[in-house]
Amino acid sequence: MASESAAPDPVRVLVVGADAAGMSAAHQMLRTARRTGRRLAVTVLEAGEDTSYSACGIPYVASGEVDSTDELVARTADEHRAAGLDLRFGARVTHIDLDRRLAEVAGAEAVAFDEVVVATGARPVMPPWTSVDGVPVDGVHAAKTLRDADTWARRLATGGPVVVVGGGYIGVEMAEAAVRRGLDVTLVTRSRVLSSFAPEISAVVVAGLRKAGVEVVEHATVEGVEASDGVVRALRLADRTLPADHVVVALGVTPATDLLAHTGLLSPSGALRPDERGQVVPGVWAAGDCCEVRSRDGFWTYAPLGTHANKAGRVVGENVAGGDLRFPGMVGSAITRFAPGPVHLEIARTGILDVQVTDPSVDPVVVVTEGTTASGFMPEAAPIMIRVSADRTTRRLLSVEIVGGPGAGKRIDTAAAVLWYGGTVDDLAWMDLSYAPPVATAWEVLQIAARRVAERIDRDAQR
Amino acid sequence: MASESAAPDPVRVLVVGADAAGMSAAHQMLRTARRTGRRLAVTVLEAGEDTSYSACGIPYVASGEVDSTDELVARTADEHRAAGLDLRFGARVTHIDLDRRLAEVAGAEAVAFDEVVVATGARPVMPPWTSVDGVPVDGVHAAKTLRDADTWARRLATGGPVVVVGGGYIGVEMAEAAVRRGLDVTLVTRSRVLSSFAPEISAVVVAGLRKAGVEVVEHATVEGVEASDGVVRALRLADRTLPADHVVVALGVTPATDLLAHTGLLSPSGALRPDERGQVVPGVWAAGDCCEVRSRDGFWTYAPLGTHANKAGRVVGENVAGGDLRFPGMVGSAITRFAPGPVHLEIARTGILDVQVTDPSVDPVVVVTEGTTASGFMPEAAPIMIRVSADRTTRRLLSVEIVGGPGAGKRIDTAAAVLWYGGTVDDLAWMDLSYAPPVATAWEVLQIAARRVAERIDRDAQR
Repeated sequence: MASESAAPDPVRVLVVGADAAGMSAAHQMLRTARRTGRRLAVTVLEAGEDTSYSACGIPYVASGEVDSTDELVARTADEHRAAGLDLRFGARVTHIDLDRRLAEVAGAEAVAFDEVVVATGARPVMPPWTSVDGVPVDGVHAAKTLRDADTWARRLATGGPVVVVGGGYIGVEMAEAAVRRGLDVTLVTRSRVLSSFAPEISAVVVAGLRKAGVEVVEHATVEGVEASDGVVRALRLADRTLPADHVVVALGVTPATDLLAHTGLLSPSGALRPDERGQVVPGVWAAGDCCEVRSRDGFWTYAPLGTHANKAGRVVGENVAGGDLRFPGMVGSAITRFAPGPVHLEIARTGILDVQVTDPSVDPVVVVTEGTTASGFMPEAAPIMIRVSADRTTRRLLSVEIVGGPGAGKRIDTAAAVLWYGGTVDDLAWMDLSYAPPVATAWEVLQIAARRVAERIDRDAQR
Repeated sequence: MASESAAPDPVRVLVVGADAAGMSAAHQMLRTARRTGRRLAVTVLEAGEDTSYSACGIPYVASGEVDSTDELVARTADEHRAAGLDLRFGARVTHIDLDRRLAEVAGAEAVAFDEVVVATGARPVMPPWTSVDGVPVDGVHAAKTLRDADTWARRLATGGPVVVVGGGYIGVEMAEAAVRRGLDVTLVTRSRVLSSFAPEISAVVVAGLRKAGVEVVEHATVEGVEASDGVVRALRLADRTLPADHVVVALGVTPATDLLAHTGLLSPSGALRPDERGQVVPGVWAAGDCCEVRSRDGFWTYAPLGTHANKAGRVVGENVAGGDLRFPGMVGSAITRFAPGPVHLEIARTGILDVQVTDPSVDPVVVVTEGTTASGFMPEAAPIMIRVSADRTTRRLLSVEIVGGPGAGKRIDTAAAVLWYGGTVDDLAWMDLSYAPPVATAWEVLQIAARRVAERIDRDAQR
């Protein structure tokens, strides 16, 4: 019919990757298109067979707390398709030709697009020793995919010693999973446990790990694995060999951006740096773990976290569909927990650690404060340690790190809000935070911690 | 010696009231005086015999969770005196003569001063029915003093039905204490339970109270008590009589400002309104529950909370000793908990509720959001309800109310920080808050709640 043929062809949007960032983008563009009237035909190509799953939930499948990987899936493929997305699994994009607007797909026909959203995520770092003669060693696995989650749930239920390689968030969480399974656990790390935190915080976490029965080996070098019949039996360090029926590789992730390696669009870290609207170059958008994230202060960091992926995906979706939304920048918030039983530690951080400050005009003042999560007379009172840094001249808050018992960790969000506004330690010390004996001290410990930095600055100024 | 006699006489500072505000002021002025070199002679007159105790801790003594009222005392009298304060108990100031700078003390000599700090706190509201022929009925008591705490710890251990009159924070907390003691509890309130919250929040709390076995009677009128031999036996409402071996009177407090009734300095609520330096008129300072508190927006509210008392006391102390510190205003944060066992509710609020907004240029948009405190697949996930209001035009956050399971309540502090900066719902929706499955959802529920208000505003604007 004439009136229909006169309508413009829909914009062909190709989303590469069907996890948090990609699916946030895809659904948001459908929602926004209803408002803007833009006609979109959205195709989502996923190399694997999973979509919209919580990678952060994997340790809790491994531990048995979560019964099935199904529970980690926020929306099923059917739900995505019912929303109007052309979602295709097993479609690995090997190359994106930006000039011809064509995505090459392994073993399938190339897909043409007008706009492409790169949401390819990240791949776990797997050092050479995780394979022998190019074949991955059985029992040596990362904790990144739903298949990994199933593998670990199955393996950890069988018993035998576990070695976790890597002292970051996932390493600590997988150590908890193995302890919950009642296994002998060794955590091995090349530097410190939670090395993105200050040493004082790491030390508390190491003490907690040890109290829970985890052997902690810091500053270790992994030389290789010992296997028989392709199955791991031990992990060799420089100075000792650890028996291991299971080796969790938790050495972080690296952006999955091979398909754009030829473009010159990648940062030195191999990631993309989309602008605040989520665009890399005209027609090319990106979000999630294949990207660096811009801080509110304008610094780029590779911070592959679901929170950023969700927000950035939403920003891209809105803009692809003709809206105007800006990613407002991050401040560096993150949290984890090590709570396998009698030990319960929540560990959180936000901001730029004093040791990471590169601006010579910034003079960090640091104070570590110990207190309690609830009034000292309450049975709920648990120890909490808070490390605060602020700039001496501007008094601006730089960073807050927290380690402590139940309720300690999410206090970081209050500090994150102060950082969001570029606020000072005085703001944090004097703002109107809530108090009741079971959940706080009358002077909230986060405020005591901030006040001590303020007092240190004042005292130093009088000298 | 000549050089000594040439030194100026110390400034005579009189602090009236030895609880949070008064003692914060007294100790801060000693600290600041060491820095400023000001010579102070600080006398503290306390009508009772308690000092620096946590009134908020009383329900937990009543419940037996805290063994002794001693634990509620932050600093003992000896410690105060060792710090250099002339602390006198049983010294009830009946009248302050501002012209002659003289405080009249019941049954003792008047005390002369150069500067006076009024920190007399508040008295529980005790309606006529709590006494018979002017004699307080045994078994009918408030929960305000350490003596009250001892009374309730002793009484609730003896069994018998309990009626709590008053549905505010203390009423709910005392109901918890009685439930923990295994007693039959009825909570009676003239309006709603937690009427400073929106009805949706109150309803969740009422459901929690009932689930814990508390009979809740809202919109009730107390007509009197029935007593035998001066001991309470029942509480009479308009339409029924409740057997009661114990009646907790939790009807709020009123500023203890009789000693200044003649001065014309009191607000309509009977409280003082010190300026941001804590001064009422030259030489007269005030802090704590005898004062109203100024919000950051400039509104005065009677909000008798320990958090304000501590901060305001510190401000007064600093300024009396020659420093310069300003009380930065409050935003209306408060929290309580009802968690007597299987039920665990944390209830918190901040900001100006939409129903309290008097500025006709403000057009509140309100959305109630339900979610979970942790990822849905985690055993830690507990329901949480968040009610957010914001101004339609400026998008400024007006208020946030929260009710939910463990970890729900202190999320209010993040909203309080946004209010502190006069931020918008968009700020709250997009700021960088922390996520891990045991403690949050990937889109933090507080941010989902804020985003829904933003979306409601956007949608309404398109109509």
